[in-house]
Amino acid sequence: MSETMNSAVRSEAPIGVFDSGIGGLTVVREIMRQIPNERIVYFGDTARVPYGNKSKETVIRFSRQIVRFLEAHNVKTIVVACNTASAYALDELEKEIDIPMIGVVKPGAKVAAEATRSGKIGVIATEATIGSGIYNQYIEELNHDVTIWGKACPLFVPLVEEGLLEDPVTDEIARRYLTELIDLDIDTLILGCTHYPLIRSTIRKIMGEGVTLVNPAYETARELKEMLLLRGLLKQQPSGLGDNQYQFFVSDTAGKFIRFANSIIKYGVLSAKQVNIEND
Amino acid sequence: MSETMNSAVRSEAPIGVFDSGIGGLTVVREIMRQIPNERIVYFGDTARVPYGNKSKETVIRFSRQIVRFLEAHNVKTIVVACNTASAYALDELEKEIDIPMIGVVKPGAKVAAEATRSGKIGVIATEATIGSGIYNQYIEELNHDVTIWGKACPLFVPLVEEGLLEDPVTDEIARRYLTELIDLDIDTLILGCTHYPLIRSTIRKIMGEGVTLVNPAYETARELKEMLLLRGLLKQQPSGLGDNQYQFFVSDTAGKFIRFANSIIKYGVLSAKQVNIEND
Repeated sequence: MSETMNSAVRSEAPIGVFDSGIGGLTVVREIMRQIPNERIVYFGDTARVPYGNKSKETVIRFSRQIVRFLEAHNVKTIVVACNTASAYALDELEKEIDIPMIGVVKPGAKVAAEATRSGKIGVIATEATIGSGIYNQYIEELNHDVTIWGKACPLFVPLVEEGLLEDPVTDEIARRYLTELIDLDIDTLILGCTHYPLIRSTIRKIMGEGVTLVNPAYETARELKEMLLLRGLLKQQPSGLGDNQYQFFVSDTAGKFIRFANSIIKYGVLSAKQVNIEND
Repeated sequence: MSETMNSAVRSEAPIGVFDSGIGGLTVVREIMRQIPNERIVYFGDTARVPYGNKSKETVIRFSRQIVRFLEAHNVKTIVVACNTASAYALDELEKEIDIPMIGVVKPGAKVAAEATRSGKIGVIATEATIGSGIYNQYIEELNHDVTIWGKACPLFVPLVEEGLLEDPVTDEIARRYLTELIDLDIDTLILGCTHYPLIRSTIRKIMGEGVTLVNPAYETARELKEMLLLRGLLKQQPSGLGDNQYQFFVSDTAGKFIRFANSIIKYGVLSAKQVNIEND
């Protein structure tokens, strides 16, 4: 089989996307917008969510199980749509598999490094992502004239999951987390957790209009498209009916996931299949 | 071997205690106080915490793995020190093993059924525990003249885990959750999640002095003692040095667990061993 034919066949394969739970759906939403022909197999580890306050070792172990699951679904690439897993597990897992992987950290870091004018960048994320120092590492590789401050915001995820997207309590907690970043006079803020774009308006209100908010989901979808194009893996034809364009898998029962998914992405998520990921 | 001798040997065996994470340590604290001779093997499922917003099926699967782990440690009894696991998994797992099990729900329900004078009882707990209706079921078995209202308080666990034990945000969230129970004029409130006793003073402030707060941890330790006594399984001699009196196991790395454990129980928790529970 020639390289071209092989690419043509591979380009029909789905994109694998995974997250600790539902947050990665903000990345799926961007992929659906920017490359609407593509098929997607999504895995949300809803039985073991959250990852953001767990150890590197545990996050690698969980991510490895999911990558194997997605490989078994013959995906052409894997998007790690979770900042914590991107921070802790991506480098490790890239070495173990043959298909290309993209995380959300590098694309977010790139935009921030380009966007800043004052060279003062803030990163808000889970404890794990901040603790890893990975945003600092990637940004400093691209732009030496920057200072980066990381701030863990552990209550944002539960507040989002409880639906308090616009609420005085979320305002108050956001004010506590963000005040020191305002005082440091940053001009660019990375929303370094896939849940955070869902409270973007609260963050915007507190940070003010002068600060650029970077949503890595958007940039990740853009880089994904570029990478698929370069490798001749971009799907050319729209997916047809019966093509199973979007498939969702979760490790806990599907009901709550489906409700949340439908509030995030406009495509009607009618079903999600529960699988036992621990055996993979 | 005679029954008596067998009991004497068995009484030296440790008590197994488990929880989704750290909350069960409030139960351990009570056991240490009330039956200080006993040895304890604790398992906290810190890699998969929390359980309270997950499905029955998943909570049973996780609990079954832990019960097998504790059995392998030759425990003489198992305390399910987690309301969600008691609500979802206890009945199922009791059928599968030979050693006696005690949950936290029944003891809490018993005290509430006895304590109420107006017959109006409130239960606050995780979504899962409230959804199971198990507190209602047990209380109504004991006292027919009661009305019970359950209220899920999903943000309490993350607020406690972030250490906001006395904080205006916790006050505000507690006020939202508890106002309807105040309006219903309950005289007894069950703290139906092992994290909640840690914000007892906030709950007390909002509910007022007229409402009896029931902490199932205390009652569970009392019933445990009674059960061991009845079965001749109470450990007679104090544990000596080198006796490994208290052993702690977790599924994620131990560092954070040890810090939190030492803030809850006065006995110095010097170490916790990480184990891979998924393979059990």
